[in-house]
Amino acid sequence: MGNPKPPPGLDPAQLEQVAGNGLLHRRALLGRGLAIAGMGAGMGVGLRGAAAAPLVDDEWSAYQGKTIAANGVRSKYVEKTTRILSNPNGEPRTQHARTPHEKLHGTVTPNHLHFTIIHNGIPDINPDQHKMVIHGMVRQPLMFTLDKLMRYPMTTRQTFVECGGNSSPMFSNEPVQATLQHLHGLVSNAEWTGVLLSTLLEEAGVDPKAKWMLVEGADTAALTRSVPLTKAWDDAIVVLYQNGEPLMAEQGYPMRLLLPGWEGNMNIKYVRRIKITDQPAMTFYEARNYSPILPNGKAYKFYFVNEVKSFITHPSFGMKINGPGYYDISGLAYSGSGAIKRVMVSADGGKSWAEAAVQGPAQDKSFTRFHIPWRWDGSPAVLTSRAVDDGGNIQPLRADFVRERGVTEKPVVNTMGFYSQHYNSLTSWAVDAKGEIKHVYV
Amino acid sequence: MGNPKPPPGLDPAQLEQVAGNGLLHRRALLGRGLAIAGMGAGMGVGLRGAAAAPLVDDEWSAYQGKTIAANGVRSKYVEKTTRILSNPNGEPRTQHARTPHEKLHGTVTPNHLHFTIIHNGIPDINPDQHKMVIHGMVRQPLMFTLDKLMRYPMTTRQTFVECGGNSSPMFSNEPVQATLQHLHGLVSNAEWTGVLLSTLLEEAGVDPKAKWMLVEGADTAALTRSVPLTKAWDDAIVVLYQNGEPLMAEQGYPMRLLLPGWEGNMNIKYVRRIKITDQPAMTFYEARNYSPILPNGKAYKFYFVNEVKSFITHPSFGMKINGPGYYDISGLAYSGSGAIKRVMVSADGGKSWAEAAVQGPAQDKSFTRFHIPWRWDGSPAVLTSRAVDDGGNIQPLRADFVRERGVTEKPVVNTMGFYSQHYNSLTSWAVDAKGEIKHVYV
Repeated sequence: MGNPKPPPGLDPAQLEQVAGNGLLHRRALLGRGLAIAGMGAGMGVGLRGAAAAPLVDDEWSAYQGKTIAANGVRSKYVEKTTRILSNPNGEPRTQHARTPHEKLHGTVTPNHLHFTIIHNGIPDINPDQHKMVIHGMVRQPLMFTLDKLMRYPMTTRQTFVECGGNSSPMFSNEPVQATLQHLHGLVSNAEWTGVLLSTLLEEAGVDPKAKWMLVEGADTAALTRSVPLTKAWDDAIVVLYQNGEPLMAEQGYPMRLLLPGWEGNMNIKYVRRIKITDQPAMTFYEARNYSPILPNGKAYKFYFVNEVKSFITHPSFGMKINGPGYYDISGLAYSGSGAIKRVMVSADGGKSWAEAAVQGPAQDKSFTRFHIPWRWDGSPAVLTSRAVDDGGNIQPLRADFVRERGVTEKPVVNTMGFYSQHYNSLTSWAVDAKGEIKHVYV
Repeated sequence: MGNPKPPPGLDPAQLEQVAGNGLLHRRALLGRGLAIAGMGAGMGVGLRGAAAAPLVDDEWSAYQGKTIAANGVRSKYVEKTTRILSNPNGEPRTQHARTPHEKLHGTVTPNHLHFTIIHNGIPDINPDQHKMVIHGMVRQPLMFTLDKLMRYPMTTRQTFVECGGNSSPMFSNEPVQATLQHLHGLVSNAEWTGVLLSTLLEEAGVDPKAKWMLVEGADTAALTRSVPLTKAWDDAIVVLYQNGEPLMAEQGYPMRLLLPGWEGNMNIKYVRRIKITDQPAMTFYEARNYSPILPNGKAYKFYFVNEVKSFITHPSFGMKINGPGYYDISGLAYSGSGAIKRVMVSADGGKSWAEAAVQGPAQDKSFTRFHIPWRWDGSPAVLTSRAVDDGGNIQPLRADFVRERGVTEKPVVNTMGFYSQHYNSLTSWAVDAKGEIKHVYV
């Protein structure tokens, strides 16, 4: 069985705080060498005296339990996790459903909790009738049914999808007191499986003079976006499966375009047409809605990439910390330009920073979890995080971000203002002496 | 926008078959350079003439669709994917539910489709009352509640869990004609989040003379297994979350032991006791049920690791191939000893082999998808796969496996025979001239 002795512990210096307000060395959470009991009197978490309090058999240890169902079910004690809806009665306008990041641990968003935005309701598309065409500047136009697409080579990858308008409350002049679901719920992460668009374009034969494609959905919104062909050749996928199962109805069943790391709205659901062109079509969503006007009077044009970003999920607004002692600070980081390389965490509102542990493998354009151990002494603290991707892109500080992008004149929640797009600056949580958590700007 | 021209195509030689019966080079599915239309007359999959058949607006393009629900839902056209149950009426004996691998694409098993085996029904454990103790050969026994455990550093990783009795029908003397769900449904793969057991053991202070731990569950089965401490120090996790959400009730809510790559039965659900000892306890499941007697009369003892294995999911038994042409062969590979390095695929029953594309990142002890393009000429073929992990372990050929492990005297399905454990040899599908698929041995 080999040598069962534990590996050597950390250098005791690593149990010391590495940044202000009690942040400890990230290696302390790699499971080796952190004797939490050794962190100082009263800081251990496990309860002593187990031997003096022998285990009793609870009721559930004595009787036959429930029968397995064909689909697994949750414990009745688990709070039902659902999404907030912006338009629960389905009035004829846009509907949003947001992912409750504060209730999830890990990186995969379960399918029923993936965010969605729908402009004219969820269509009931018959997969046997649905067709997708590739036409325009091609050698030969092609038409695909779901059955035909299933015969092509599939690819599987994890990636996030984020609405360009995610985090719009962060443009408010005052910090909005709301949970992560409200603030950042329009981003989710899944394992997607489908056919690389490049495979289909090669079969169609693209004219060398073509530079763009116009992509259109089959739902009533007939949402159309222009996408540079560079992205098609790079990593665009016509997706059929989401976390192993056929796409959810609200995610574009039977097929959607996936552009890893690019603005959610461009990832056309229910895709039915890809027209190859030599110029952008300047549709509503690229010419008006996603061309935010900046404080200097100019507008962003073709602002496609969701840039490097992070936020702390545990603890966060709506939670309460139960007294001083050791806690795990954890959150999500992601970048539309690559993989997450480093995440810095501060417990003193950005005065000092410590490097968090990044949970590997940090995949390209995918959620990455970070953790850092924190010994809270019971005094006020401000927690925030800042991510860096493998291209060296760094999440901007709020002062710099606001200088360039502006803020609203009064607080906004869940609106799409002129500035309210592509927020990727910091999110900060103030912990008061009672352990209560507020949203603050630093 | 950079250069929108496609990258250079493959060497034409790579479009040639690389092994018998039409297997093509794996690079052909990397999305670059495979002009399927160029594979020969009639081999293209996309339908020509799209320009001559303009898109019509279907009904769903004309009307407001459905309202978003708080939990996302599936299209009404998607066949409801569920698990087969061995004991659907919950008679007082073991119940099994199997993952339908033939219906899934990717590597993550959604929580409601993860396999489970339950010996005395699913307990309704109140998480506020549940306690877990670490005692025995420790400096100080510790007791943990769920709340306390949540304060420790968490770790997130993907790994498979496989029952030691998975694939037991493969020990039949004749190939059982059944779907993948029947044959290999007692293995699944998820993203798990929890606390490294080593962190808790360090706090308890393990006696240097200790070598084993006895782990016990809180359900009525009170399932107990002895686990070498080497595994505890290596990568064991006390798991709280499964694919982002709290553990499913049938997966051990509120907490279970996860031993990545080791026999499912040892991954004790509802864990309530970890007793540190200097010897194994020789419980029922290690001394009798999981010590299979071999043809030579000896028994395996402490056969913990689920060794390197693979099977083709698409196509597989129960599907029909619709005429000659191009198809994607895809499947799952995994190893309890490490990451998948290579998967070889044969279309002529093992006479010749081609290397499949392994979808990265191939994670340690986790499902890995493989793909290889196949041009079926309509004549009979036998598809099979063989995986190799990064430790150089190779999936055994069936003749070698049977010589060592034996087969039954008559076909068995879903039983736990003396030999019926830890099958990791090949799974083979015969395709006849009509495109129908049978399970065969090669």
